[in-house]
Amino acid sequence: MERLTIVKVGGKVVEEKESLDLLLNQFAQIRGKRILVHGGGRLATTLAEKLGIETQMVEGRRITDEATLEVVTMVYAGLVNKNIVAGLQARGCNSIGLTGADLNVIRAKKRPVKDIDYGFVGDILGVNTSELRLLLNEEVVPVMAPITHDCHGQLLNTNADTIAADLAIELSNYFTVNLFYCFEKKGVLLNAEDENSVISELSFDRFKLLQEEGVIKEGMIPKLDNGFNAMRNGVSQVLITNPNLISMARGTRLSLKED
Amino acid sequence: MERLTIVKVGGKVVEEKESLDLLLNQFAQIRGKRILVHGGGRLATTLAEKLGIETQMVEGRRITDEATLEVVTMVYAGLVNKNIVAGLQARGCNSIGLTGADLNVIRAKKRPVKDIDYGFVGDILGVNTSELRLLLNEEVVPVMAPITHDCHGQLLNTNADTIAADLAIELSNYFTVNLFYCFEKKGVLLNAEDENSVISELSFDRFKLLQEEGVIKEGMIPKLDNGFNAMRNGVSQVLITNPNLISMARGTRLSLKED
Repeated sequence: MERLTIVKVGGKVVEEKESLDLLLNQFAQIRGKRILVHGGGRLATTLAEKLGIETQMVEGRRITDEATLEVVTMVYAGLVNKNIVAGLQARGCNSIGLTGADLNVIRAKKRPVKDIDYGFVGDILGVNTSELRLLLNEEVVPVMAPITHDCHGQLLNTNADTIAADLAIELSNYFTVNLFYCFEKKGVLLNAEDENSVISELSFDRFKLLQEEGVIKEGMIPKLDNGFNAMRNGVSQVLITNPNLISMARGTRLSLKED
Repeated sequence: MERLTIVKVGGKVVEEKESLDLLLNQFAQIRGKRILVHGGGRLATTLAEKLGIETQMVEGRRITDEATLEVVTMVYAGLVNKNIVAGLQARGCNSIGLTGADLNVIRAKKRPVKDIDYGFVGDILGVNTSELRLLLNEEVVPVMAPITHDCHGQLLNTNADTIAADLAIELSNYFTVNLFYCFEKKGVLLNAEDENSVISELSFDRFKLLQEEGVIKEGMIPKLDNGFNAMRNGVSQVLITNPNLISMARGTRLSLKED
């Protein structure tokens, strides 16, 4: 099967022009079919602050009331997405910005209220691979913003790591998929103080052990849960890494081998 | 040739949920191939105000400094565009939101500084009809936000009326194009106080006469200039109308007949 590279980028990388330029340089050099999935949470928090809208996070997830949904739609689907698309076009990479609503690419449902009311947050119901494959076959690079819809006109804020994993899983029926989670660190660190303490290969058992020990925490937990879920469901390779290391395929490689 | 309907919608219509729903109901019922082009200027002005960014207009054109460009990118390409796309998907209309940067659909250049420095405002250099036709042939409905790019990574604020006219002109090589400019009035009014004083057919000579007399003024002037330019360059029909009147094709019809 043909190879497809899916790069998810978030954190500080998309926030600052310099690091975004570096990511786009690296991304534009990847050969073959590609999809870029981006976040933009900190920029959304900054805009919300300026507008006097309070940001509430529960376990790394944003409580999304109506005003917050407007903010994330503007920041993710507008500001971040279109600057990435223009940046890729400048690098000769014919890209198209998408949310889940565009071409009905990702259907979701509003997360049911249990202990916490997350508001307009979407849980993914399905990925429409036929439209994505049509674009990929035209050598177009989809750039996904982390917004989906419920097919009834409601936009929904949706976790970008999960979008990347779900796209990777569904498209692994048609391609050999490599999934890269890119952020400002060089990989999963054994010691948060030491940038060079990257774990080169991480099994699920060791992940759970390190999570218990508090070595792996916060936003890294859902990212790794998504990554292992992708590995278990047909994705060939999942790497947690830095934009600089994409071409060398270095960073933390997830492994399904048992310890 | 097959028919293509291009609807440009702006003003209060896209701002309020009720009038937008009405427009989307009407638009979803149009048969055959369709493109929707939208504005959103007043929403941009409101957001700029909240952020303490001063809005400066010269002859209906927005002076676009860096902060203003961020605002219009967020409002046009994010908030307005994605809500329209989700609203059309809810009505069974498979749509995709685009700026000129997506698929490199519209190339532009930053307007040269003469008497006035408009900032990051784009003058259109070319329309990439092949990508648009690919989408139209897949029965996909492009929804265009009034943002273009310069192919070097710079997004540019671009007049939506001009985008609609330029798309109509370029696509008239492949389709019989009907162009509708929709806003809150029923057409071009002879008497601003009388909603029913719609001019049913308007020739260029009469337009210029009414402009001299001050009957036609402000934002209506560039809209009509764009409309007559489209008529002169292959577009079959240009109508200035209200969303309610699209299906009846009523409103002010532009005419190239000499008086």
